[in-house]
Amino acid sequence: AQSSVTLFGVVDASVRSVKNGSAGSETQMASGDNTTSRWGMRGVEDLGGGLRASFHLESQLNVDSGTADAAKYFGRRSTVSLSGGFGEVRLGRDYTPTFTNGLGDEFGIVGIGSRGIFLYGGGSNLGSAATTLVRADNAVSYFLPTMGGVYGQVQISAGEGVVGNRYTGGLLGYKNQALDAGIAYGITDVGTPSDFKHYNVKFNYNFGFATLHTLYDVKTWGARKTQDISIGASIPVATGTIRAGYTRANRSGGPLGSGYADGDDSTRLAIGYVHDLSKRTAVYTTLSRITNKGAARSSVLGSAPAGMLGGENSSGYQVGLRHIF
Amino acid sequence: AQSSVTLFGVVDASVRSVKNGSAGSETQMASGDNTTSRWGMRGVEDLGGGLRASFHLESQLNVDSGTADAAKYFGRRSTVSLSGGFGEVRLGRDYTPTFTNGLGDEFGIVGIGSRGIFLYGGGSNLGSAATTLVRADNAVSYFLPTMGGVYGQVQISAGEGVVGNRYTGGLLGYKNQALDAGIAYGITDVGTPSDFKHYNVKFNYNFGFATLHTLYDVKTWGARKTQDISIGASIPVATGTIRAGYTRANRSGGPLGSGYADGDDSTRLAIGYVHDLSKRTAVYTTLSRITNKGAARSSVLGSAPAGMLGGENSSGYQVGLRHIF
Amino acid sequence: AQSSVTLFGVVDASVRSVKNGSAGSETQMASGDNTTSRWGMRGVEDLGGGLRASFHLESQLNVDSGTADAAKYFGRRSTVSLSGGFGEVRLGRDYTPTFTNGLGDEFGIVGIGSRGIFLYGGGSNLGSAATTLVRADNAVSYFLPTMGGVYGQVQISAGEGVVGNRYTGGLLGYKNQALDAGIAYGITDVGTPSDFKHYNVKFNYNFGFATLHTLYDVKTWGARKTQDISIGASIPVATGTIRAGYTRANRSGGPLGSGYADGDDSTRLAIGYVHDLSKRTAVYTTLSRITNKGAARSSVLGSAPAGMLGGENSSGYQVGLRHIF
Repeated sequence: AQSSVTLFGVVDASVRSVKNGSAGSETQMASGDNTTSRWGMRGVEDLGGGLRASFHLESQLNVDSGTADAAKYFGRRSTVSLSGGFGEVRLGRDYTPTFTNGLGDEFGIVGIGSRGIFLYGGGSNLGSAATTLVRADNAVSYFLPTMGGVYGQVQISAGEGVVGNRYTGGLLGYKNQALDAGIAYGITDVGTPSDFKHYNVKFNYNFGFATLHTLYDVKTWGARKTQDISIGASIPVATGTIRAGYTRANRSGGPLGSGYADGDDSTRLAIGYVHDLSKRTAVYTTLSRITNKGAARSSVLGSAPAGMLGGENSSGYQVGLRHIF
Repeated sequence: AQSSVTLFGVVDASVRSVKNGSAGSETQMASGDNTTSRWGMRGVEDLGGGLRASFHLESQLNVDSGTADAAKYFGRRSTVSLSGGFGEVRLGRDYTPTFTNGLGDEFGIVGIGSRGIFLYGGGSNLGSAATTLVRADNAVSYFLPTMGGVYGQVQISAGEGVVGNRYTGGLLGYKNQALDAGIAYGITDVGTPSDFKHYNVKFNYNFGFATLHTLYDVKTWGARKTQDISIGASIPVATGTIRAGYTRANRSGGPLGSGYADGDDSTRLAIGYVHDLSKRTAVYTTLSRITNKGAARSSVLGSAPAGMLGGENSSGYQVGLRHIF
Repeated sequence: AQSSVTLFGVVDASVRSVKNGSAGSETQMASGDNTTSRWGMRGVEDLGGGLRASFHLESQLNVDSGTADAAKYFGRRSTVSLSGGFGEVRLGRDYTPTFTNGLGDEFGIVGIGSRGIFLYGGGSNLGSAATTLVRADNAVSYFLPTMGGVYGQVQISAGEGVVGNRYTGGLLGYKNQALDAGIAYGITDVGTPSDFKHYNVKFNYNFGFATLHTLYDVKTWGARKTQDISIGASIPVATGTIRAGYTRANRSGGPLGSGYADGDDSTRLAIGYVHDLSKRTAVYTTLSRITNKGAARSSVLGSAPAGMLGGENSSGYQVGLRHIF
């Protein structure tokens, strides 16, 4: 049994100072601001005839406080798969295609500087009951086999009586040495007044001296809508990578003061540097600022702290250490 | 340290459709309907002179939703043992002998088609406080050493102030290449009106072309009683195993409408097929139907959903993938 | 990835009988009374140039009931470190220096006979909100490099808005083959009326035929104060170790009846034997008695059960099995 299991993980801790409008400033230790801290087990079994069985169990942890996700211990991923020439069938809890297509930003989709703040942070479900911004329970996925650089996935997840859990979506992309471009679309059943709909277009290109990272992401629920456009760059230097990114979130359709009304818009501007000590270990620093207008309450923390008022700005900087095992 | 640890587990997910009377039909993803999904660590140390120390930690997980058992993380088993020519002394949380003797049914005691629905499912404690249908906390067990095919165990578990936790029981059996037969008896202290008592007789026989699986299981609490008789078969075919089983649960002694009155009886009828892709990986399908009479509410789900009324039937079918690592 | 991870742990279970004054006697199964039951992962990566990255994740478990720490799964330790000629910088949840300096008692700081009952057991924070008797969240530590036998650490932990979490402390010690002596000091911000202050002096000496274990430990909060003096010995014999220890806790300054008033004093007297079956496996037995005066409620259980009254005594004995993997 043992030989087939790979034990893996990430431990990432940082010291950061954040300021969130009226909620004030705080110095904190954070976990996973370069790469989410986790541990897991995975394995592949060759069944012969090109067929493979595989599994992946992955658990989030917070290095700063020693906590794990008590409610969903293997909440990052718990899947079993059968794959072969036909592609892959995967069962369990996993990323949704609309989230997967949003990966690949310059900040690795996590931390105070990432466009992930808008992709899946506080308010990203537009106030609906959708739980599928990142992952879905009870998901059956089919992945295309490797065909040139084309990749694709469709996913259906059973709601099992929980409003906001039932999701249907897919993605289609193309990837070669320089280019990674994809589109994704997903619908979540959240009851009235309409389904929660989400689509995005990713276009990343490696120019050699730098990689361009862009995402156009749109979510709607009834009259509410957010269009987020992100652009960023990662620039390899001697012993690391400089990263910089910008997002503009353009919200509309919600009632005045809801944070989803016209003009409840936000922008992200972040710059950082990752200094590689090895392939697995790095020290990193990030500087980020989010500007909110109207009643918007986006925060570098992902979710705004209670004391932060609509339209107030958020900012932070940090220094951290990330180790992959 | 590391060399002595075996990391092991099971990931098993299925798609099933179940119908439970007035609670209606639902399509679900389920975890562990062929073999309970889990991960664990175990190890053995040779102490010399025939003496061995060993441990076993095993945690249940649900592949469909990524959850673990937050209340009892290593709730499947957490034991440390000393064993040798004298047998084995085992300390910790573990199966009760009355449960162990009920193992070895044709469906592996789990899933929508198993006799486990009656052995430990909803209502199997007859409405008492007994928590010992499957496992006991704070258990000291003694296991007989290997003596021909004879095996046996006695177990005492401390209640530590929790009503329904204090258990005393044992099992005695005989096993050779064809036969596996055993008897078990256990008493759980549940306060008034009497102890919860449980005994069962297992008789399994491998005829070569098929194995017969039978269990006669009786539980009593005060006037309440359930006598469950199960018969099943597992039939090896070219690349897998066909399984079929039947249980009749004959309940009596409880008040009218309680689900434990005379005539609150249930039957299980199930058939399935496990297609082996390797020793560790299989796809499986099961079809099961439970017929309830009077106020009985047994369900293929193990515990009946809230909307299901007494006397209504339950049925389900599923297709799943199980991988052992 | 896998090659760098060490999976480790301890499973330790015992049967004990305890008596706690009016709360009466109880026979229990206990976990970790010789060495706390746990599992964990750790690893070290050589970064070249004398630099190393390392991590340590450690989770407590209770063998008797199969539970883990649901609220802080890796609550025993979750850290990532960078170390080299300059020493070690460590980030995450970890022991506080004032706790670390109290380690090294004759009973391994845990169980019914240990001075840990006074170092971190019930009432050891003097009724303040301090959570830092053993560990601190959000801690940044710096450890001195190896310099002869001198060792030292400073630690600062961010409160992040939780009263009783903000800690600043350090330790300095000297260790050679016979001697291990150290001092530690720590301050925890608990709001009014003052900080919670804690310091201790450890002096352990191995005379060859026996090791002497002493600790002088003082905690204050406002007018409340406890001065605990511990002395113990561990005596190697043919196949194990005899251990004996005594603590006198001298409390003062609290209101009458609070358990912290003048004369609310306690003493511990314990003797035990650890019989080694291998380096990793041992059986052990301990006999312990705690005498309380005034309103003091110290217990061999660490925290007194509800029914135990002030000034009542506590005692216990146990036999257990400990296996390290």
